[in-house]
Amino acid sequence: MRNFTYCVPTEIVFGKDTEVSCGREVKKHGGTKALIVYGGGSARRSGLLERIEKSLEEEGIAYAEFGGVKPNPGLAFAEEGVEKGIREKVDFILGVGGGSAIDTAKAIAHGVANPGIPLWDIWMKKVPLTRTTKVGVVLTIPAAGSETSDSAVLTNEVIGKKSGLGTELNRPAFAIMNPELTFTLPKYQIGCGIADIMMHTLERYFIPDQENRMTDEIAEGLLRTVIDSGRKALQNPADYDAMSELMWCGSLSHNNLTGLGRAKDFSVHKLGHALSARFDCVHGATLTAVWGSWAEYVWTNDVNRFVHYAKQVWGIEGSGEETAREGIEKTVSYFKSIGMPVSLGELGIGIQDEKTLEELAMDATMNDTVRLSVLRPLDASDVLEIFRKANH
Amino acid sequence: MRNFTYCVPTEIVFGKDTEVSCGREVKKHGGTKALIVYGGGSARRSGLLERIEKSLEEEGIAYAEFGGVKPNPGLAFAEEGVEKGIREKVDFILGVGGGSAIDTAKAIAHGVANPGIPLWDIWMKKVPLTRTTKVGVVLTIPAAGSETSDSAVLTNEVIGKKSGLGTELNRPAFAIMNPELTFTLPKYQIGCGIADIMMHTLERYFIPDQENRMTDEIAEGLLRTVIDSGRKALQNPADYDAMSELMWCGSLSHNNLTGLGRAKDFSVHKLGHALSARFDCVHGATLTAVWGSWAEYVWTNDVNRFVHYAKQVWGIEGSGEETAREGIEKTVSYFKSIGMPVSLGELGIGIQDEKTLEELAMDATMNDTVRLSVLRPLDASDVLEIFRKANH
Repeated sequence: MRNFTYCVPTEIVFGKDTEVSCGREVKKHGGTKALIVYGGGSARRSGLLERIEKSLEEEGIAYAEFGGVKPNPGLAFAEEGVEKGIREKVDFILGVGGGSAIDTAKAIAHGVANPGIPLWDIWMKKVPLTRTTKVGVVLTIPAAGSETSDSAVLTNEVIGKKSGLGTELNRPAFAIMNPELTFTLPKYQIGCGIADIMMHTLERYFIPDQENRMTDEIAEGLLRTVIDSGRKALQNPADYDAMSELMWCGSLSHNNLTGLGRAKDFSVHKLGHALSARFDCVHGATLTAVWGSWAEYVWTNDVNRFVHYAKQVWGIEGSGEETAREGIEKTVSYFKSIGMPVSLGELGIGIQDEKTLEELAMDATMNDTVRLSVLRPLDASDVLEIFRKANH
Repeated sequence: MRNFTYCVPTEIVFGKDTEVSCGREVKKHGGTKALIVYGGGSARRSGLLERIEKSLEEEGIAYAEFGGVKPNPGLAFAEEGVEKGIREKVDFILGVGGGSAIDTAKAIAHGVANPGIPLWDIWMKKVPLTRTTKVGVVLTIPAAGSETSDSAVLTNEVIGKKSGLGTELNRPAFAIMNPELTFTLPKYQIGCGIADIMMHTLERYFIPDQENRMTDEIAEGLLRTVIDSGRKALQNPADYDAMSELMWCGSLSHNNLTGLGRAKDFSVHKLGHALSARFDCVHGATLTAVWGSWAEYVWTNDVNRFVHYAKQVWGIEGSGEETAREGIEKTVSYFKSIGMPVSLGELGIGIQDEKTLEELAMDATMNDTVRLSVLRPLDASDVLEIFRKANH
């Protein structure tokens, strides 16, 4: 087991009707005026925003609103939010929605606490981030895990780059998680969430350091839970227990608990981010579109690990290469079964010209300056090969 | 899944040589003068205290010391610590050791922050606890999980009562966990730790609310990990990976992660505390001495749960009563195999007179005013029956 540090100070408030405690939570964490950051009109139409506003008013918390966050949230939009937050003199940012709203809230929080510093300079770590504004979350989509994670992802539309920022200052002060708020999600979005949750664990799982029994147990248990609950949630999106499992697993999957004591990979995310930045695809779908091709490209570097995975997660008996491959196939079949694409063609961006594939490979590897994946270090030519495999 | 709140703000610093970061951690969390609370001379002899002092000095942190914590730590001793802490004007309490040292540190922290209020009044919740002094921990025994838990246990020697205090103010600011510090533990103490860790999870597991898949997966994975790693650690207490697993599982087992979304039981702890308060037995050993008798007394109230346990934790195939009983037997055999007592006789306190057993049953149930166990509510006469079963 490698040395590690771990700290998730986020207060989880989980369960039915918990959004009414929003005002109390903001107050408890010292907020007096909040900027409510959210996406489309569904938060308004469903009555959720009204309940949140009422709960803020009851505690004497003032607020301003900043709606319109889109999937793959952009830098320019977050900068607008920073301006509004500063203008409105808020001291608390409240993200309402899924990963996009929460990541935008985190970005705005950093900007508001550091006026005058370009947000992208913070994102690229040109300026060290030493302070932020407190963020609270009302989660409505089980997926990204941003509600307790140390990461946030923004897309710089000008240079076409999607990039994550990892910092302990990204951990929200509280996360309100009411599974009932997810009952109206479209099935495709549920599928993307399941994929994202699984991938946050898978990306921490295929690592050569394998002396981490408890971390493995949590990862494997989480994958089994998500696989089963995902099936149930897609059959009946109003299944409270299934959605509860997905929502809780979404947090646990990405707050580092599933990877403690070993290195981190996240190479498939790098491939996915390259696709999202160029084609504006939904995050979870970009991951399933390439995971199978990635796995087929790297699995021979650690057959035992893939055998172990096949056995623990999919209950496949046996050993050796056949079992390892079967585990990969089961995973890809599962992605299909939950309506997720497993190729660039199914993602809707079948690429005709080799040049675009090459550019994507360069994007994913920062112009061939970094090696992705721990199991098998991947340079731009390896990534190109994976994109080619996935391009059908 | 029941509604829940969950927050573990404790910063975990896990791995080799991490104790040298102690001064940095105290400083980071705002301490300027620490009271170092520890047990016997081994922390001094081993050089650990010296390394900790050096690390404090390097960061300009002043300190005073308060050694001599004993197992089943007492109220009077903690009160002495409060006096010393106030006299020395400390603003940080540093617990060095296992559960006894950490629980004493927590108690002192509450007392120092609330001068003039009798500690037992805080413990009995006669005075609401609204503030405390920050606590940091250097853990040397994987067992109690106090390093990240919301609980602490003290014994009031005058009235012969051992009692836990649960409050979010009990969560330490940081916990330094170096598995190498455990290599010199006597095997009996390792066994007691294994028992304590398992029991913290078992006490949250046998509950009628069973729609908690992820919580179950974590609990079952943790039990399997502790069972295997416990065997390895007893064979070779210098097995770094095995001790790492025990240490990490000790924290996860008792910080509530293994019980989220359902009720809490802890009836076996109540029985154990009654034994410890009267006979000053080691905590973990009191639990194994009665667990089998408790299980035999309650299992028929939820056969399916015990079958599920047998299958998931012990790999026993089958269904029905025989499987359930086999799971209980395997658990008791495991306790024996790690050198733990499984009866009051083996605990060294075989009780000759019925009156003592009756008094113990009254102690455990607060004079028959509370019902223990969720699976089967236990009054004093039930508890007496369990003590009788265990008294051989």
